Amino acid sequence: MIWKCPVCGFTFPLFERYFWKCPVCGNPLHIEYNATLEREESRNVWQRFRGMLPFVPEKYRGEGLTPLVNEKFGAHTLMFKLEYLNPSGSFKDRGTALAIAYASKLGYKRVADDTSGNTGLSISLYSRLYDLKADIVMPRTAPEGKKKLVRRFGSTIIETPSRGEAGEKVLELAGRGDVFYVAHTWNYFYIIGASTIPMEIAEEDSIPDIVIAPIGSGGLFLGLVKGFEVLLKMGITTKMPVFFAVQGYSAQPVFKEFKGYEQPGEESNLADGIMVPKVPRLKEIVDALKKYGGDVILVGNSEINRAYELLWQWGFAVEPTSAASFAAFEKIKGLLNGSRVLLVLTGSGLKFI
Amino acid sequence: MIWKCPVCGFTFPLFERYFWKCPVCGNPLHIEYNATLEREESRNVWQRFRGMLPFVPEKYRGEGLTPLVNEKFGAHTLMFKLEYLNPSGSFKDRGTALAIAYASKLGYKRVADDTSGNTGLSISLYSRLYDLKADIVMPRTAPEGKKKLVRRFGSTIIETPSRGEAGEKVLELAGRGDVFYVAHTWNYFYIIGASTIPMEIAEEDSIPDIVIAPIGSGGLFLGLVKGFEVLLKMGITTKMPVFFAVQGYSAQPVFKEFKGYEQPGEESNLADGIMVPKVPRLKEIVDALKKYGGDVILVGNSEINRAYELLWQWGFAVEPTSAASFAAFEKIKGLLNGSRVLLVLTGSGLKFI
Repeated sequence: MIWKCPVCGFTFPLFERYFWKCPVCGNPLHIEYNATLEREESRNVWQRFRGMLPFVPEKYRGEGLTPLVNEKFGAHTLMFKLEYLNPSGSFKDRGTALAIAYASKLGYKRVADDTSGNTGLSISLYSRLYDLKADIVMPRTAPEGKKKLVRRFGSTIIETPSRGEAGEKVLELAGRGDVFYVAHTWNYFYIIGASTIPMEIAEEDSIPDIVIAPIGSGGLFLGLVKGFEVLLKMGITTKMPVFFAVQGYSAQPVFKEFKGYEQPGEESNLADGIMVPKVPRLKEIVDALKKYGGDVILVGNSEINRAYELLWQWGFAVEPTSAASFAAFEKIKGLLNGSRVLLVLTGSGLKFI
Repeated sequence: MIWKCPVCGFTFPLFERYFWKCPVCGNPLHIEYNATLEREESRNVWQRFRGMLPFVPEKYRGEGLTPLVNEKFGAHTLMFKLEYLNPSGSFKDRGTALAIAYASKLGYKRVADDTSGNTGLSISLYSRLYDLKADIVMPRTAPEGKKKLVRRFGSTIIETPSRGEAGEKVLELAGRGDVFYVAHTWNYFYIIGASTIPMEIAEEDSIPDIVIAPIGSGGLFLGLVKGFEVLLKMGITTKMPVFFAVQGYSAQPVFKEFKGYEQPGEESNLADGIMVPKVPRLKEIVDALKKYGGDVILVGNSEINRAYELLWQWGFAVEPTSAASFAAFEKIKGLLNGSRVLLVLTGSGLKFI
């Protein structure tokens, strides 16, 4: 098992040292390992898919194996994956459970990250569980409710005047040798974590024709691609779905890289989880879209809000960011070639009231 | 399948008419039906245990099949059942999914209930899902956050000056023939719903020696008893666990009925979900405790708070009521005869910030 830089070829043994990015060229790293079909009849997701993972985390708090709800909707079957029912209320728990278990394995006692969203809560939960001290750096303007939850887990919040300064502050912490900088937008464990979603779906149901996934930093999207690729390679499934990435008009780096231009449109800040202007794995995302014949769809606040209202009406208590992919589906449904559509509902709406 | 009153013997076909209590003697009703071992390899809890249920609800929103997390703690193995990861954030969703599906089957278009807690949110979710209009009656003093969530699902909140007047107001609504009065503290569907918890545990693990469960109105407790009884009767398990019911010093009707006296102690209103002074199924609860050799444990705010802090420290993001059973465990652990202890973590802490 190794860290590997797909750009410059740098490699290093995975369990010898942690790198949040390539120490040679600064690009995002991959983790390479041999996946096998080894599995256990366990409802602990890590035991269940143990062969597909680089290691099995020591602790488990109910992450993964989330419900899949199929609903007929016109000509389509929507496959809703209820990732908001993870322990801290978002899909991030899959990646965080791996990342923090790894940090603990390597002997770290402190972790740090910059996030004002779901990841801060997720990192706080797992850090506490492994008895690591967590510093969460966020702008002073982040919502008080989120700060309260993060503090309840015992994390320290370091407030900065702006989002930009939060990024600088965390790099200062990351420079210290004893701090595990989670760097969730770079960290490959978040991709491995999300790759267990397709494994669960393949066990329970036939695989979808189409996957519509929101892109913030792209960990969920790349994890879904990786998961379906592993299933195909192992002979568990026989085809890849077509992937549609969803961004908001207010932050469209993937759209721009894929299409070569920006498309102006309505503000999209309701979906705060995907308002990410700089995407570390931009090239990997665009390569996957090209390889599997997908596209990027942009949505705005009124579309997100309509989708959000409809999801609650259907009994899905999600946060607005989760509605972006359903909004994108509504926009393109007439053009879809295939009837089974996977929509990952990413985050809980209970904590944002 | 029939409604049956265990006190006066009244019976009526289940699908012909709904009674929230016995129309002859006013006692709580049971639902009698033949359970079978028929099941399906489905992750929909209702399909999975279909033979054990009076009917399979038409819709499913991810309720049930919650994670089970085992942790060594001194001489004991604590089996934490993560009921707070249900779709609206509490174990009530199991009962509500059945009750509202039943109301819809019978052709009701409106439901009503009096609750300022988790049940209001749960009823709002499933009512919206089945396109029923829900009136939730609660005292003006109920927390604004809960009201917001209930309204987000499209329920109407009817505010009354006090808890007592909420009870009167809902009976006025219940008197109207077209309104399905959920009466969750009386409704046997909540017992059937909770009875699926032991079925899940028996599938995944050996059954516990000891069950420690909080008692508000007793639906969870009686559901657990029923579930383990069914497993035993069907030959799936070979013994019953010993049951400990947990109440707070501030509301101890079960303790009083079981012991014959009240025990003064510290205030316990932190565990608001079990501050229920009048328990409709008091006799059934006490009978079960006597039959299976259990006891009632009282806890107060400082014990609840200590247990609550420890649960968050362990990565369980629960509400304080969920900590009552762990507080009770801490109190009696030296005396427990058996090492495997089931603790049901009832409600999410994400929504109460």
